[in-house]
Amino acid sequence: MTAPITPAPLRLGIAGLGTVGIGVVRIIQAHADLLSARAGRPVRITAICARDRKKNRDADLSGYDWVDCATDLARRDDVDVVVELIGGDEGIARQAVELALDNGKDVVTANKALLAIHGQALAERAEAKGRLIRFEAAVAGGIPVIKTMTESLAGNRIRRVMGVMNGTCNYILTRMQSGGLPYAAVFEEARKLGYLEADPTLDVGGIDASHKLAILASIAFGTRIAFDGVEIEGIERVSIDDINRAADMGYRIKLLGVAQMTGRGLEQRMSPCLVPADSPLGQLEGGTNMVVIEGDAVGQIVLRGAGAGAGPTASAVMSDIIEIARGVRLPVFGQPAGSLARTQPARTAVPAAYYLRLTLADKPGALAKVATVLGDAGISIDRMRQYDDEDTGEAPVLIVTHKTTPDAIDHAIETLPSTGVLVGDPVELRIEEV
Amino acid sequence: MTAPITPAPLRLGIAGLGTVGIGVVRIIQAHADLLSARAGRPVRITAICARDRKKNRDADLSGYDWVDCATDLARRDDVDVVVELIGGDEGIARQAVELALDNGKDVVTANKALLAIHGQALAERAEAKGRLIRFEAAVAGGIPVIKTMTESLAGNRIRRVMGVMNGTCNYILTRMQSGGLPYAAVFEEARKLGYLEADPTLDVGGIDASHKLAILASIAFGTRIAFDGVEIEGIERVSIDDINRAADMGYRIKLLGVAQMTGRGLEQRMSPCLVPADSPLGQLEGGTNMVVIEGDAVGQIVLRGAGAGAGPTASAVMSDIIEIARGVRLPVFGQPAGSLARTQPARTAVPAAYYLRLTLADKPGALAKVATVLGDAGISIDRMRQYDDEDTGEAPVLIVTHKTTPDAIDHAIETLPSTGVLVGDPVELRIEEV
Repeated sequence: MTAPITPAPLRLGIAGLGTVGIGVVRIIQAHADLLSARAGRPVRITAICARDRKKNRDADLSGYDWVDCATDLARRDDVDVVVELIGGDEGIARQAVELALDNGKDVVTANKALLAIHGQALAERAEAKGRLIRFEAAVAGGIPVIKTMTESLAGNRIRRVMGVMNGTCNYILTRMQSGGLPYAAVFEEARKLGYLEADPTLDVGGIDASHKLAILASIAFGTRIAFDGVEIEGIERVSIDDINRAADMGYRIKLLGVAQMTGRGLEQRMSPCLVPADSPLGQLEGGTNMVVIEGDAVGQIVLRGAGAGAGPTASAVMSDIIEIARGVRLPVFGQPAGSLARTQPARTAVPAAYYLRLTLADKPGALAKVATVLGDAGISIDRMRQYDDEDTGEAPVLIVTHKTTPDAIDHAIETLPSTGVLVGDPVELRIEEV
Repeated sequence: MTAPITPAPLRLGIAGLGTVGIGVVRIIQAHADLLSARAGRPVRITAICARDRKKNRDADLSGYDWVDCATDLARRDDVDVVVELIGGDEGIARQAVELALDNGKDVVTANKALLAIHGQALAERAEAKGRLIRFEAAVAGGIPVIKTMTESLAGNRIRRVMGVMNGTCNYILTRMQSGGLPYAAVFEEARKLGYLEADPTLDVGGIDASHKLAILASIAFGTRIAFDGVEIEGIERVSIDDINRAADMGYRIKLLGVAQMTGRGLEQRMSPCLVPADSPLGQLEGGTNMVVIEGDAVGQIVLRGAGAGAGPTASAVMSDIIEIARGVRLPVFGQPAGSLARTQPARTAVPAAYYLRLTLADKPGALAKVATVLGDAGISIDRMRQYDDEDTGEAPVLIVTHKTTPDAIDHAIETLPSTGVLVGDPVELRIEEV
């Protein structure tokens, strides 16, 4: 605990100098004394690399060795930790991480795709070599959710983890509501603002958030990461109509991830859900993220903060670096990788209220037919609103059900077209209790 | 990282078997496998003690050695960690902790008073002996705020820490509002529910919350704990009138702790403040706690959870125990105690809007006189409401000022009586930006 008289610095090789990489460089440059006091030893960058060396990054990088490839960092004797901020689940990011571990270096990464897909193999590889992989920045940016789950709540059996973990989707949904704008218009706006990934389906398709959910679920339940087991639905089909009507009834629509262990297996789902407008999740605006963790002893813990951006993400990367500098060495997912359980994916069976939006043709008895289908499926109606559209003669109908099972809702949705009174497809969204 | 084939158990001596102590026992009994998997070794209780051995605690304690005094735990060879859950800043709690450290044992405690008052000396003692003191449970119950500050935000220069950290006060304030009840009635209610400390001024006087704030400030700013430097005001003078009128204007009254480092020294204040009703802090109900941390890289992080109770507090105690079992050894306050800076206490100079409630005598020009005093003090008025009380002829007046300095407000408050138009003392509450 007492610092040695001449503590050896922790030497970093930083791979990737985008927003986050430069954010890390800036913290290390600005807070050298603070970091040294807290870590018990200096933290130094020895070498860096990025795709384009000539790009103006508005940072003084003259004190660091440039290398041509991230894998070169993994080969250097003067690098203790490879900080992988390249991204992507294959290619150079994966190679650099694997080579770093093989060469006896610890790894800090913000790469959720890499972990969600190769996390188990990488954790086994790291542990076989006695090395670490730390990844606080991979989930929910600056929010310390990995540490909270792995360490602070380690005395709890976790019941449920959920959260809003993609700032871009939350930006789009809140902006649709505040501006009264359709999805396509806000999507374009987000693209112009640079909020979208190069492949925007990673964001709006819910993939990125699902990577994060799969990582959290593994830690929460002591299971192998099972990204394939996440039921994923993005926000593309969320219409401004649904946002407005949900708001009329006191709800907000959020891209919500939920993971819980059931008797049938591990439930992981990422989908647009309704949450009460006055709940902490309902009030989440713009790019802010929120993770809600429920443990058997602690009850509910809510963590809120910026889910992306240079500063918040670099803050999380730094926390991992400082932990390594301090000599803290924990298994990658909180317990040895070999002890993580294999699980079956399970579809949720937890009853919930549902929001249904149907458009009915102007036919006598149309509503009665819908009510009959719902009744036959065992679904009772909590609230219903019928709107009139005089131009088309069609009648949009909004239904909030009492709690019912997902199976009952599926059955009703499948049966409804047979009534012959529906125009278009019904919209169905789960109302999550938060 | 790979667990040894026969890992030695971590052996605990638990001092104090109240709600929290029994909560810890229950978790260790219920989750032995989980804890062993996560800690990498079994966690075992070897000995326990409490004031009254015969009390029915509704737990099976037959497997543990009873000792007569907490200091006996510190003397046993079969105890690695003394878990101090007695409380109080002197007496047996302090003796047991000091003796445990002297005898080469680590300490886990939930004792905020002990740390707030003797933290520096205890940290120096622990570090001199190469031992640990961990105290996640001492601040904000189940919320992992100590770990978040010490570890997750270690790459940040902290700008401000604030929070609602006494559940009893928050219960009283929210219950006054929801029930339209005066302070005295709710105070009695809280006493009957067992929510108050034996000495209730610890709660309602703001002392308990100030202990917590002083601990957080030390970690946030790398300074020696300075409980004496906290400006403390409790909730005793908060009236139902103020709660109702603040609500009319879109605010809630919370017992809010704020700590920040200034050029003049360390500002630490605990006082009833107004916060916007729709802010995360404004929405906090009942015994829930919230801590808001602002760092230069991470921006704002909000942590919310149960601030007290057996489960949440025991969850925090367990996180400390598991960290010790895992071999994590960090300085008590995040950096060596000897390196913590001495600071001067500083009164806040940060401008804020203020809420003023005055009762004016029914005299011509009374309001004009008040306005003149405020204007002379350089205070401009944002909103004002005058109420009529026909029975008394007195006129309650509510003022929300524009941002002004604490000095200007003090000056105005001192000058107002000289107008001769005031009935009783003016009420002044800061409106905190959150």
